[in-house]
Amino acid sequence: MHTVRFNSAPEAAHVPTGTLLVEAAGQVGIDIQQPCGGQGRCGRCAVIVDSGAVRRRSTLRLSSADIEAGYALACQTVIEGDAAITVPPQEQIERRLTTDLTAREVPIPAGYNPFEAQPIRRLSLTLSPPTMDDQTDDWSRLQTAARQQTGVENLRVSLLLLQKLGHVLREGGWQVEVLLDTDEARLIDVKAGYPADDAPLWGIAIDIGTTTVTVWLVNLLTGEVKAQVAEYNGQIARGEDVISRIIYSGKNNGGAELRRLILNTINTLIETACQRTTISADDILKATIAGNSTMMHLLLGIPAQTIRLTPFVTAVNTVPCLTAQEVGLAIHPEATVDCLPGVASYVGADISAGVLASGLDDTEAITLFIDIGTNGEIVMGNKEWLVTCACSAGPAFEGSGVLHGMRATKGAIEEVWIHTTTHEPTFRVIGNVRPRGICGSGLISLLAEMFLTGVVDKGGNINLSLQNPRVRMGEHGAEYVIAYAKETGHNQDIVITRVDIDNLLRAKAAIYAGFTVLADRVGVPLAAVEQVLVGGAFGKYINVEKAVEIGLLPDMSWDQFHFLGNTSIKGAYLALLDRRARTRIQHIAGRMTYIELSADNSFYEAFTSALFLPHTDLARFPSVKVN
Amino acid sequence: MHTVRFNSAPEAAHVPTGTLLVEAAGQVGIDIQQPCGGQGRCGRCAVIVDSGAVRRRSTLRLSSADIEAGYALACQTVIEGDAAITVPPQEQIERRLTTDLTAREVPIPAGYNPFEAQPIRRLSLTLSPPTMDDQTDDWSRLQTAARQQTGVENLRVSLLLLQKLGHVLREGGWQVEVLLDTDEARLIDVKAGYPADDAPLWGIAIDIGTTTVTVWLVNLLTGEVKAQVAEYNGQIARGEDVISRIIYSGKNNGGAELRRLILNTINTLIETACQRTTISADDILKATIAGNSTMMHLLLGIPAQTIRLTPFVTAVNTVPCLTAQEVGLAIHPEATVDCLPGVASYVGADISAGVLASGLDDTEAITLFIDIGTNGEIVMGNKEWLVTCACSAGPAFEGSGVLHGMRATKGAIEEVWIHTTTHEPTFRVIGNVRPRGICGSGLISLLAEMFLTGVVDKGGNINLSLQNPRVRMGEHGAEYVIAYAKETGHNQDIVITRVDIDNLLRAKAAIYAGFTVLADRVGVPLAAVEQVLVGGAFGKYINVEKAVEIGLLPDMSWDQFHFLGNTSIKGAYLALLDRRARTRIQHIAGRMTYIELSADNSFYEAFTSALFLPHTDLARFPSVKVN
Repeated sequence: MHTVRFNSAPEAAHVPTGTLLVEAAGQVGIDIQQPCGGQGRCGRCAVIVDSGAVRRRSTLRLSSADIEAGYALACQTVIEGDAAITVPPQEQIERRLTTDLTAREVPIPAGYNPFEAQPIRRLSLTLSPPTMDDQTDDWSRLQTAARQQTGVENLRVSLLLLQKLGHVLREGGWQVEVLLDTDEARLIDVKAGYPADDAPLWGIAIDIGTTTVTVWLVNLLTGEVKAQVAEYNGQIARGEDVISRIIYSGKNNGGAELRRLILNTINTLIETACQRTTISADDILKATIAGNSTMMHLLLGIPAQTIRLTPFVTAVNTVPCLTAQEVGLAIHPEATVDCLPGVASYVGADISAGVLASGLDDTEAITLFIDIGTNGEIVMGNKEWLVTCACSAGPAFEGSGVLHGMRATKGAIEEVWIHTTTHEPTFRVIGNVRPRGICGSGLISLLAEMFLTGVVDKGGNINLSLQNPRVRMGEHGAEYVIAYAKETGHNQDIVITRVDIDNLLRAKAAIYAGFTVLADRVGVPLAAVEQVLVGGAFGKYINVEKAVEIGLLPDMSWDQFHFLGNTSIKGAYLALLDRRARTRIQHIAGRMTYIELSADNSFYEAFTSALFLPHTDLARFPSVKVN
Repeated sequence: MHTVRFNSAPEAAHVPTGTLLVEAAGQVGIDIQQPCGGQGRCGRCAVIVDSGAVRRRSTLRLSSADIEAGYALACQTVIEGDAAITVPPQEQIERRLTTDLTAREVPIPAGYNPFEAQPIRRLSLTLSPPTMDDQTDDWSRLQTAARQQTGVENLRVSLLLLQKLGHVLREGGWQVEVLLDTDEARLIDVKAGYPADDAPLWGIAIDIGTTTVTVWLVNLLTGEVKAQVAEYNGQIARGEDVISRIIYSGKNNGGAELRRLILNTINTLIETACQRTTISADDILKATIAGNSTMMHLLLGIPAQTIRLTPFVTAVNTVPCLTAQEVGLAIHPEATVDCLPGVASYVGADISAGVLASGLDDTEAITLFIDIGTNGEIVMGNKEWLVTCACSAGPAFEGSGVLHGMRATKGAIEEVWIHTTTHEPTFRVIGNVRPRGICGSGLISLLAEMFLTGVVDKGGNINLSLQNPRVRMGEHGAEYVIAYAKETGHNQDIVITRVDIDNLLRAKAAIYAGFTVLADRVGVPLAAVEQVLVGGAFGKYINVEKAVEIGLLPDMSWDQFHFLGNTSIKGAYLALLDRRARTRIQHIAGRMTYIELSADNSFYEAFTSALFLPHTDLARFPSVKVN
């Protein structure tokens, strides 16, 4: 056993030879972020080995100067003797406060009638007490009374409820409150006495995004959303995209750890929502969950490796109804947990729910639906047909894979303008502070401006002959300086490099190629698309004109684009509220024809053609005019 | 805290004031039997207080001499200071070995066809592996293949199985063994690779008697019973009849303790059966359970108090299907556990199953079915109608409530003959050893002989004027000596007392009055009964002629009586094997009209009339001739 000391922990870790540095750190409570899921690819878990015997299994992200200075990747370095380690301050995830989401854009369905739409029911029952002439058993007595009010036959009941039934009936003097899920024909709870006349029924809609988790607390009787809370997915430090998470989940106990992390995130959000509204979490009787297929697998502890390995299949797309107890949600233990159905490995329940919320499946118009989140999923169709695909765009638009990229939090440059002759930039920063990096909408804006002003050509090459010192050769090749160190929040130049631009081009090309392939496959020209519905929180912050200018979105007029925000949570909310919406989601998932782009010969060609600004075929972008 | 020392434990117990002696004993591992369930009524838990401060809450079963000698009832005595206690040797339950039951009387249904009859199925499936052209999720792929073979739609699956599914499918190269319950539409397990061609499917039938628990291990494909094992119900030391058990279960943690005890008994029997047949308990995929309503409640941890309190209702008669994991059975955790339906508090699933096994519900002949166990349940009817009642006969015929009564184990007198002129007895003892007491069949035989030879009159009074010293006044009043101390196994006289006789008369009168009331209620004279089917292991040992002579059974000819043995386990076995038998039990339970004797005005009259030997109305017993 070796003794490993960390600068930021009072106690030392004691570990055997071969232990990873991250594990040793974890033992003394130091949580080192691993955005790439511990693959040694992102370099974000670098620590300094002050002294001692370690072995670096990979130095992919370290320069020889770094290694000389003692740097090592915590996810790739094993202990071989006593050691002393310094953990440098890591990028803190600044939490975009969740209160700003409260009570916005909540589309309570017109004419919502819980008695028709809502499977969760509360009954006030007065049972005739047993007598010597009527010795019916308690459970039959309750079932008969419940059937008379609901028509539900063969009600299912857990052993735990049977164990308490007799006491509850007698404690309440045969007046009881019965809570049940009529669609599942399942008793949720039985309580002594009558409920108050105005007692609400609570439910929650949950959207598990790879980056952000959103919870809506809903009054099932009125449709009112009492609280909306959101938070970063606690799994982020174990991988920023689904592939990194899947890799991490395949490691020893990684799956269990990721499950615990997402449950912590969700349960903390539920607690917050309940505290804010003084509602008891035990009164929440149903949860409806949307999320991509990987998030759903990780939540349920189902191994997800097959999602990332050819031929890319999930263990399950349509998860059976579970209880909160089984899933681990901190609401009523017998609450129904309805995980919405997905379509494929990379088109999950978030898209089924999103299509519902967008109304795409119910419109005559040929429509394109895009959800740009950490992945990019596309659906094309109308009420007659639906095709879908997923573009492995990567998380570039979430700031990952870009040198000064960051998430859209305080200090992120969110829009950029470049002077057409001086090539001097101006920008807007989230929170009006000194910038520390650039977020996705800032990158789209920056790339469009650079292209339109000639800082880059249509191939993304930086024009080093410009008369402006912002254009220069840096450590990573050609770069353009957006902000000098003296203007920034961390006293470093903020630049965009040729490598960054390539990453962005690949991301936008993947999405645009997705449009092209879907359109080709169904034999409908992209020009025939009548409207584009953009889902995902990210979509709300995009400047459409600039997204068209770089060729990310098809060249259509402004009024053909509709930004719907988080369609996944909205779909989950509608499914929670209305059994007809729930059925529609099942039909949507069943109707969508999934096209696997990696198996499609035309995809690579479409992708290559889209690697230019805005596209090789300028006829596709008639409105884009280069200065 | 007080220190309590026991003669038979190395360590002392440390308990606060007010602790019961039984609890203090339990703390140091001494298990004191409480046949009456800790009510202070049986006197069997008497211990000697050698020194120390205790308070006797009840001395009902102790004489003043006993108290002077230091005796105290462990269930009624509380600690008030340090104490030293001697626990006298207690009656050991001798275990009637279970091997003698093996492979007897097993009625494999003629023409048994598991494909029609058996809901548990094993499938060998070869799935087409996923490809880029067929990215169907694992669970849908499996469901589709299973549906093609079974027609079962909407198969249910546990989260645990979903968690392992992907691995199993790939480990087996897409060749898998699928185990499912087609009636419940539920996946039980999925295993990699193909099963052997001759792989059996195992199930168990369980009968939980108040006194004896029986388990049959069954090959579901052939109907063969591979092992039959039986054991005393581990709850016996906590009460010999259901009322004592219910009372005990209502005490602090009593319910949990009784649940643990019965599960221990069942699981030990399963282990024994598996060891004997070299079968793995994990291969047992279904359990079907019969037992009276109290046993079923205690097994499932459902409070049973309402069963003994007016108006005598159960919490549940028809228990939903559960899994072995939920119930606590040590077989495959996802195995289906089917608790058969009961009718009322005192007519349980053992009777529903018994009626099935007896064929009563399918005969033209007016039939009486009696199950004499620790309780006495009666069913009258034929294929057109069924009425039933329960007689609170008490456990006198199991040897309880009779001074020298004992269970039918080694050393029990099981048959008695009395000389008509000398009044000298001869007897037969189980195991051919010196007698230690009298069991139920011995008591029936003894009472009949005493009556026929004039040792007692028709009122049960012992004739003290007989010229035989065996007739004498003893500590408990008039008594008759069956065996003198020098002939017995414990060097004490074995006697029957006036008090014992009264208890036996009440027991037999309760049963006979039950016949009378049922017959009156349906307007059929008892004489119209064409056959009597006697269930219960006890029935097998009864001498019918003598049972008629004391007025326990109606006066019919020998060939009208049929002794069926344990009909409860046979019914459970049939229900385990054949879904049609299972459906029939449900119909039987639904069809039986239950008559509550304690609410029936005519019962008391019938009971009083039956308190004589053989009956007040001798016209009912024309064949009984007194010498």
